[in-house]
Amino acid sequence: MKKIILLFLFLPFLGISQSGKVMDNLSVVSKILGMERKYAVYLPPDYYTSERSYPVLYLLHGAGDDHTGWVQFGEVLQITDKAIADGKSTPMIIIMPDADTKVRGYFNSPDNAWKYEDFFFDELIPEVEKKFRIKASKRFRAIAGLSMGGGGSFMYALHRPDMFSAACPLSAYTGPLSMEAFKAQLANRNMAGTEAQLEAYYAKHSATELVKTLPAADLKKVRWFIDCGDDDFLFEGNALMHIALKKAEIPHEYRVRQGGHTWTYWRESLPEVLGFVSLGFHQF
Amino acid sequence: MKKIILLFLFLPFLGISQSGKVMDNLSVVSKILGMERKYAVYLPPDYYTSERSYPVLYLLHGAGDDHTGWVQFGEVLQITDKAIADGKSTPMIIIMPDADTKVRGYFNSPDNAWKYEDFFFDELIPEVEKKFRIKASKRFRAIAGLSMGGGGSFMYALHRPDMFSAACPLSAYTGPLSMEAFKAQLANRNMAGTEAQLEAYYAKHSATELVKTLPAADLKKVRWFIDCGDDDFLFEGNALMHIALKKAEIPHEYRVRQGGHTWTYWRESLPEVLGFVSLGFHQF
Amino acid sequence: MKKIILLFLFLPFLGISQSGKVMDNLSVVSKILGMERKYAVYLPPDYYTSERSYPVLYLLHGAGDDHTGWVQFGEVLQITDKAIADGKSTPMIIIMPDADTKVRGYFNSPDNAWKYEDFFFDELIPEVEKKFRIKASKRFRAIAGLSMGGGGSFMYALHRPDMFSAACPLSAYTGPLSMEAFKAQLANRNMAGTEAQLEAYYAKHSATELVKTLPAADLKKVRWFIDCGDDDFLFEGNALMHIALKKAEIPHEYRVRQGGHTWTYWRESLPEVLGFVSLGFHQF
Amino acid sequence: MKKIILLFLFLPFLGISQSGKVMDNLSVVSKILGMERKYAVYLPPDYYTSERSYPVLYLLHGAGDDHTGWVQFGEVLQITDKAIADGKSTPMIIIMPDADTKVRGYFNSPDNAWKYEDFFFDELIPEVEKKFRIKASKRFRAIAGLSMGGGGSFMYALHRPDMFSAACPLSAYTGPLSMEAFKAQLANRNMAGTEAQLEAYYAKHSATELVKTLPAADLKKVRWFIDCGDDDFLFEGNALMHIALKKAEIPHEYRVRQGGHTWTYWRESLPEVLGFVSLGFHQF
Repeated sequence: MKKIILLFLFLPFLGISQSGKVMDNLSVVSKILGMERKYAVYLPPDYYTSERSYPVLYLLHGAGDDHTGWVQFGEVLQITDKAIADGKSTPMIIIMPDADTKVRGYFNSPDNAWKYEDFFFDELIPEVEKKFRIKASKRFRAIAGLSMGGGGSFMYALHRPDMFSAACPLSAYTGPLSMEAFKAQLANRNMAGTEAQLEAYYAKHSATELVKTLPAADLKKVRWFIDCGDDDFLFEGNALMHIALKKAEIPHEYRVRQGGHTWTYWRESLPEVLGFVSLGFHQF
Repeated sequence: MKKIILLFLFLPFLGISQSGKVMDNLSVVSKILGMERKYAVYLPPDYYTSERSYPVLYLLHGAGDDHTGWVQFGEVLQITDKAIADGKSTPMIIIMPDADTKVRGYFNSPDNAWKYEDFFFDELIPEVEKKFRIKASKRFRAIAGLSMGGGGSFMYALHRPDMFSAACPLSAYTGPLSMEAFKAQLANRNMAGTEAQLEAYYAKHSATELVKTLPAADLKKVRWFIDCGDDDFLFEGNALMHIALKKAEIPHEYRVRQGGHTWTYWRESLPEVLGFVSLGFHQF
Repeated sequence: MKKIILLFLFLPFLGISQSGKVMDNLSVVSKILGMERKYAVYLPPDYYTSERSYPVLYLLHGAGDDHTGWVQFGEVLQITDKAIADGKSTPMIIIMPDADTKVRGYFNSPDNAWKYEDFFFDELIPEVEKKFRIKASKRFRAIAGLSMGGGGSFMYALHRPDMFSAACPLSAYTGPLSMEAFKAQLANRNMAGTEAQLEAYYAKHSATELVKTLPAADLKKVRWFIDCGDDDFLFEGNALMHIALKKAEIPHEYRVRQGGHTWTYWRESLPEVLGFVSLGFHQF
Repeated sequence: MKKIILLFLFLPFLGISQSGKVMDNLSVVSKILGMERKYAVYLPPDYYTSERSYPVLYLLHGAGDDHTGWVQFGEVLQITDKAIADGKSTPMIIIMPDADTKVRGYFNSPDNAWKYEDFFFDELIPEVEKKFRIKASKRFRAIAGLSMGGGGSFMYALHRPDMFSAACPLSAYTGPLSMEAFKAQLANRNMAGTEAQLEAYYAKHSATELVKTLPAADLKKVRWFIDCGDDDFLFEGNALMHIALKKAEIPHEYRVRQGGHTWTYWRESLPEVLGFVSLGFHQF
């Protein structure tokens, strides 16, 4: 019995040396949102044995899900551990915030009653980059996400190309494809706001529109990896983004594999995302 | 002892089953074209040891190339042998015709001075399906090709959905994307014809136009596999075909991998094409 | 007994499907040299079962050796079979001529008493490219060789860049590094000729001199792969060719691995050579 | 039963042996430089479980980088752990100092305003060899580095052959190739000094010059491993060092692989460096 206890005392050293760690119940107190917000984190296998800083990937969940999605459905621990062990990914920290997308989502609402984007940049990032040993600079910071979180990846990187070296929208909602489409959607969505607010919101949240209006120099500040299955209902926005970025001569990767809007698809995408952002973190 | 001898007697058959055969210097005398036309053939490993008939894949080369392209650059022998040995592909015969695309190409010209499409259906298919032990029916006949030959795959299957169970355009030229684009191209191409002939030609050779004008029931008669690298200059037509087929609710596969308009890409596509057409030949 | 004979009757089919074939006792009757010259050939595994044409690699032996060197010491059969089976090399025909280097070598002598280079281009190439199913064009023709045969690879491709798509000199003698060095060598070598003939010979057979005097456009017509071990006594000429080609902005590959002027080194080089020339034969 | 418990007791040690440790935020207070200097360290997997001393490798970063380069871009932890686990490398400690090369670099400046070389030998080495369980003798001390740090590897070992058993310059800046070249560079570099100081600096910092002027007996005190990709812009100095060392009959290894001035190249070089220095630490 005593010996078994000794064993357990040593096991942590054993475990840490081969396996990363996830925590899915951390939180940040947000003044901007006036509430506590949850997030999950992945720490690489050598986090507790070494004393170094790491690059960071912000990994966003989809609508109707929360910060535990990538942990439970996405198998972020097993997949990232394996990608690191295979040399496909550099060790990195992964932050998975809860955007409460059931009701509100990743963006500031048109009437600014919900300011998640402000929270993300002004409160979440500073707090986690202080709390964990993260290299707090654009060069070592990337963003990825699926569906609505793919939309978050697109928009955060389009709005703040000074913040991310790479963005990987998966099966992304690319925002309304036209002002008409946007107006048709408004009835179904919780979007209060004046006409001017709604127009400003559209201009800032349609990915295809932003490719037209943003300076090419800004679009080129981010390495893009766009991935959407051929059976995904969000096929059109992603195919149009491929075309729009090509015509604007913005370098980007585009992938279409067999599959739909499913975790099976995203679990296959995750190692590719890790490899893609690692290329930048590795400086080729 | 006897059993060992028996084993040795079977070994040769085992061995023969490991390698197919290519011939790259066959030809058909065409009355329609008024000339002899070359083609290459791939015969599966068991062709000479068995007495059965096989499905057939017509595999088209790109512009500036000829019937030897898939043999030399495409490694059709090694790749198909391997796909069959791995159980990914059913044994099939592959016919690779020479379309002389340097000058003319796979289609009848607007003025009907060059009638390759007629030659293909009325002379080439009947001759090779008689000469080799081919199952001469739609169910066991598929078409694939790259670039201009991807255009041939699209058009032949769109024009004659009664003839092919599957079509696999790779990095395909999808025809002009609009009548305006077509008119702009005419100056650069060998297309003599009256205004009416050119309009009829456009209507028959724009893939996106045909998706709009053909009955959905006809479009669904063919299983589609569309594949085009994200660095390919022909990205737009293929992405638009994905969107057009989705909106018309025509089942199809669409793939985009890393890569450009290169044989490296097409050698990676070929096993997928063989697997896809085999699914149909196998009846799932 | 009877059954065993049957087995042997079938075995050739078995064997051919997995293994290429070498013949080391073929010959060409040369009018230019006034004698019969031997050569060896490698035929790829599918040569006898298929009916297609193949690219060709001319593979030259070193001083003191003959056309059997690459067969016996170089293991050309096993290495090429494996490179093809691994997908590293495209199936190709390899021609290994006998240059009788004990006495004379690959080049025309200064006094033109020995015209091996003329024999190579005017008699050997035409005969073997007719005798075997070789694609007789620059695009599908490459040259490689070791030591004195590396010198032959350099000079043949420098003299006739219209003839070879790739040249791979291994541990190559690069010719005299200066006119002074050449004069110092003359005493030791069988080189009769007038002063003018010797100067012309130097100008035509010093690789570093040729990089200076030939038009860059000609140098760029050939893909170069230069490889010489760090313990090789011919290190200097190859390192200087790397520098000279860099300064002339001629794309080329240069490799230095651990090793000397040995067959152990060249057997490791051969798969790299096959892969490098295949890249060109494959059209990437 | 007892045996199984014993087994479990050993497992932790087994586990711990699989992962080393890096720290990227250590520092030395330098009187010579009048400031604090950072460095990173790699400790082998058995460092904390054993009570032994280890050989040491000083591993230098390139211009524009710092002491974290080999940790983040070079993956020193994963690569060294693997090389040790594979038996390719002996367990060793790796010290990665910050040379602040953005402004000044590894050498004393001509006017002695910046004396990093003095700091390196008189302060850094003594402190880290006391702080960690390092075998503080030439036999167990090696130096390696990339680009400007390759230059540091060359110069430190050329200046102090009594200090290092092995030196491994990767893609190294070898110093000016001639006094004329040096004078042309001076305008672009932060090098204040009298004419005499600059001449002395050149004589001490041109690797090819030092091979000519240093006694061969000193050059032979160090085992040399020189490695530079064939697409590297620093190709010339390294090829010339190969030639110079050959002519001076100084044993050395020289490697040229496919690649340029990139971390992809250096990550492939690192295991070779570890193996090469281990040969010396192992005494063959």
